[in-house]
Amino acid sequence: MSQKPPAPEKSEFRFFHDLRVRWSEVDPQNIVFNPNYLIYADLGVSEYWRQLSLAYPWHGFDVDIFAVNTNLNFRGSAGYDDWISVGTRVARIGRSSMQFVIGIFREEQLLVDVSLTYVFADPKSRSPKAVPETFVEKIAAFEKTPVVRS
Amino acid sequence: MSQKPPAPEKSEFRFFHDLRVRWSEVDPQNIVFNPNYLIYADLGVSEYWRQLSLAYPWHGFDVDIFAVNTNLNFRGSAGYDDWISVGTRVARIGRSSMQFVIGIFREEQLLVDVSLTYVFADPKSRSPKAVPETFVEKIAAFEKTPVVRS
Amino acid sequence: MSQKPPAPEKSEFRFFHDLRVRWSEVDPQNIVFNPNYLIYADLGVSEYWRQLSLAYPWHGFDVDIFAVNTNLNFRGSAGYDDWISVGTRVARIGRSSMQFVIGIFREEQLLVDVSLTYVFADPKSRSPKAVPETFVEKIAAFEKTPVVRS
Amino acid sequence: MSQKPPAPEKSEFRFFHDLRVRWSEVDPQNIVFNPNYLIYADLGVSEYWRQLSLAYPWHGFDVDIFAVNTNLNFRGSAGYDDWISVGTRVARIGRSSMQFVIGIFREEQLLVDVSLTYVFADPKSRSPKAVPETFVEKIAAFEKTPVVRS
Repeated sequence: MSQKPPAPEKSEFRFFHDLRVRWSEVDPQNIVFNPNYLIYADLGVSEYWRQLSLAYPWHGFDVDIFAVNTNLNFRGSAGYDDWISVGTRVARIGRSSMQFVIGIFREEQLLVDVSLTYVFADPKSRSPKAVPETFVEKIAAFEKTPVVRS
Repeated sequence: MSQKPPAPEKSEFRFFHDLRVRWSEVDPQNIVFNPNYLIYADLGVSEYWRQLSLAYPWHGFDVDIFAVNTNLNFRGSAGYDDWISVGTRVARIGRSSMQFVIGIFREEQLLVDVSLTYVFADPKSRSPKAVPETFVEKIAAFEKTPVVRS
Repeated sequence: MSQKPPAPEKSEFRFFHDLRVRWSEVDPQNIVFNPNYLIYADLGVSEYWRQLSLAYPWHGFDVDIFAVNTNLNFRGSAGYDDWISVGTRVARIGRSSMQFVIGIFREEQLLVDVSLTYVFADPKSRSPKAVPETFVEKIAAFEKTPVVRS
Repeated sequence: MSQKPPAPEKSEFRFFHDLRVRWSEVDPQNIVFNPNYLIYADLGVSEYWRQLSLAYPWHGFDVDIFAVNTNLNFRGSAGYDDWISVGTRVARIGRSSMQFVIGIFREEQLLVDVSLTYVFADPKSRSPKAVPETFVEKIAAFEKTPVVRS
């Protein structure tokens, strides 16, 4: 029932964003409360865009993005004041969609892995739009793990 | 690539917890920021336990629960001040694990569906423990949609 | 050094908004983390506006509000799952500003009191604007404790 | 009515903790929602303790701290992705209490200033305890602005 997909390896990632767990993120079990890992994943993605000189929001591209799916596997727990590293990479690019894989590590230990799929859309109508070619090129040039096209 | 599982029907759920979207949960896109849907799902589960007279935390059972997986499909968006309804049911029970399916609705529209899988564990060692029989019985007696045993 | 102003009495308030403390709001000390009381105060104010048929945001008034000051006295602690009551009243109205006093109670015990001062402003320029007369009248008609004009 | 105390000067502070505003902290007005400034202040205090080699929680001192009062003046607004600097200093030390003054700056502009008063207490009974002498000495040795004793 709780079969898990293969865990991402730290070596798959070229980009990492590090952060320290905040008091506001830790619960009475003394561990990070689950929704906060999705905030960490979002921070990883934001900093990934910055790394590619595509810091969000995007002026000049006339696109916005909306999450359509996310999947998280909780394999370990971060605690208050832990220093963690959010590995972020683009795993797939479709016509108007893009899937990130994010690994949240404490040193070499994978704590949580996240799949986060976005659709590119018109900022007003929110109807899907093709991923801008600039994005595809910059991602392909940056990633070391092959990006699936589908 | 973004093939989605069949959406849960509102009629599958016997239990609903209603809530109003808070200002603190809404982002500059004027919609609920994704991690908050996971908080709504957690509230649905908490109130489900209360409904079954098993309000968390559980004294007398010597078990705690830890999330191991969650999957969210974002199909629509809630906005500030929306009144939403969090349908919650147990879909599967394994030896030490339990899967909830949660449908977040605004009136009849499904906005987000969530699968949330927990493992029952010893509160101290955090090693898996069998789901207490009382829980299994109360859930079976409450649910109208059949609970898968696996 | 930590001289506190007189605590508000529960009987000062005519309007209360009740809520249950969420898991995401509680910290490893097993009590509500301080910034969340400011969220509760904000919810109290939001529901107060609704009570006066002035639910935010305000279409047709061409004003927005911005907080300029808040002061919180922590006198007790709420814990997970506590059912609390947020008393909210307008204590002062100036030309363009308005001060709320908020008392956060668990049954008869005052846990936290909050003063929250807003300025009414033009939604675009954010320069101060007079409090709309409709607001002043509705507040005066609703409150049982006298509202200071200054 | 909204008379404000003198604003802290950036030069008063010897310690700064820098951070970037997160998407989850910004509201539909496109500015940081108020309770998050209190989270920033808390981060400033946490990092201040680390700077003094007194990272919280404190093992070996048998004390904990609880906030008793906080006051925030909102003078400007941070927006998404802004890089801000949280200046933190101890302004007063009493027998069992301690007041921090925190200035939240974007470059040279003060956005929000915070006073945050804690009481030192027994971790179990939560009754007040004297501020440990080690704390007083380390603070006095670190601060450049005189610390009031009262």
